[in-house]
Amino acid sequence: MRDLSRGWRADGETVGLVPTMGALHAGHLSLVARACEENARVVVSIFVNPLQFGPREDLARYPRPIESDVSLLREAGVDAIYMPSVETMYPRGASTRVVVSGVAEPLEGAARPGHFDGVTTVVAKLFGATEPDCAYFGQKDAQQVAVVKRMARDLDLGVEIRVCPTVREPDGLALSSRNAYLDPAQRKAATILSRALSAAAEAYQGGEHDPARLKATLHEVLATEPTAEVEYAELVDPETFRPAGTLAVLAVRIGGGRQAPEARTRLIDNLDLREPYPG
Amino acid sequence: MRDLSRGWRADGETVGLVPTMGALHAGHLSLVARACEENARVVVSIFVNPLQFGPREDLARYPRPIESDVSLLREAGVDAIYMPSVETMYPRGASTRVVVSGVAEPLEGAARPGHFDGVTTVVAKLFGATEPDCAYFGQKDAQQVAVVKRMARDLDLGVEIRVCPTVREPDGLALSSRNAYLDPAQRKAATILSRALSAAAEAYQGGEHDPARLKATLHEVLATEPTAEVEYAELVDPETFRPAGTLAVLAVRIGGGRQAPEARTRLIDNLDLREPYPG
Repeated sequence: MRDLSRGWRADGETVGLVPTMGALHAGHLSLVARACEENARVVVSIFVNPLQFGPREDLARYPRPIESDVSLLREAGVDAIYMPSVETMYPRGASTRVVVSGVAEPLEGAARPGHFDGVTTVVAKLFGATEPDCAYFGQKDAQQVAVVKRMARDLDLGVEIRVCPTVREPDGLALSSRNAYLDPAQRKAATILSRALSAAAEAYQGGEHDPARLKATLHEVLATEPTAEVEYAELVDPETFRPAGTLAVLAVRIGGGRQAPEARTRLIDNLDLREPYPG
Repeated sequence: MRDLSRGWRADGETVGLVPTMGALHAGHLSLVARACEENARVVVSIFVNPLQFGPREDLARYPRPIESDVSLLREAGVDAIYMPSVETMYPRGASTRVVVSGVAEPLEGAARPGHFDGVTTVVAKLFGATEPDCAYFGQKDAQQVAVVKRMARDLDLGVEIRVCPTVREPDGLALSSRNAYLDPAQRKAATILSRALSAAAEAYQGGEHDPARLKATLHEVLATEPTAEVEYAELVDPETFRPAGTLAVLAVRIGGGRQAPEARTRLIDNLDLREPYPG
């Protein structure tokens, strides 16, 4: 992979990387399309990274539709698909972690201990293996974007991080590979996230700029869906992820009260309330 | 710095990096000479990295003879000197660390908490800023070599780590910028490190392969120098730095019993007992 990338760069061609865990949807493909517009060569990595999953999370059942992923990427015209094995990425004896403090600590960092260490470690490795000029991430994972930007800057990685907008279903649901876990009733309930964000954005744009009240609006809307269990709903600064700011961030488990928490589907979404609201 | 390096590499030239903290001596210059032999372009970085010094260590008094360093490097014919400020390397808000577990934990890792996190973080940044093909380190800092190799491999950095032998004074003392702290009596006492290593190597090559007895030999020789306070003297595996192996590693404080421990000069040295012994 590195030889390929170095060959391209030696020929004066720019290289764009889109890191994914596969199970590609239109959100990923929007990143790929932008990478193809902006670079002579595009690499898409597919790696379901065990390091970023907690012990009670969905690593085993995470969807891995490799054949359809590959054919989608062929169609999109990418130059290479980098698909390392777990053994290649984490051979016996590997013991290095890239750790970001500060922005990686609250919210997703608190809810998923070790998650961002796994993300930053694998992203550093993917940058090392593919040596891109630019890498593309989705705003859907807003805190991941902030953490990866922080890492790339702090370690002088020389990779520009470009962020693409969240892609949504017509009813507002943010695209996510984890939406595949939802049954039809849950799928309907899942729109509660974008509806809560819409309500807060509408309030903000109507002149309500008090973070406590905007947060209350998020919680009020989320409370109308009885199968939704709110993990967090906050107004934070988009760079530090500390309160308060204009970025509304949500983590909600969907799936009814009878199931064990880890059997429910955990969805996240976010919206900068200064932007037009979705759904 | 990165533009310069990328320009060279785009022209098909290889780039070698010699990371230093300045206060250059013949040990550093041997790394520079080898880098010049093996690469079209050579970068030497000079950066006294605050992150790798403990709160009670010698950061403030570490020698910084910048002018003579620069003229030595000019004479050696290097292509660039990379000399970032502390503010450039660690701007406000920087919060990323590269952390190696395992090999970074015993010995120097235990004696100097946080030291190797500082080393791996700065080396990752120097690799990011200079994008070398190869980087050169001295065997004098044996555990640092093992830790940096581990990191470069684990993070797929694409930089080959090359290790050069320890350079010694005629009486066996390993060259170190910290030797400048020694007064004439201490300078004489400091030869106890290489004398201990010599004795163990002589024993090993005479057929004594029992690590416990070789370790006892190290301690016996070190005990003959009353101003030497032994921090550790072990036989370890040269890759994992766990006992037992053929690499004899020493950390000794020189400077007499009346001084506070942090005012004494801490010296390290090492020798693979399978090799010809020094001094």
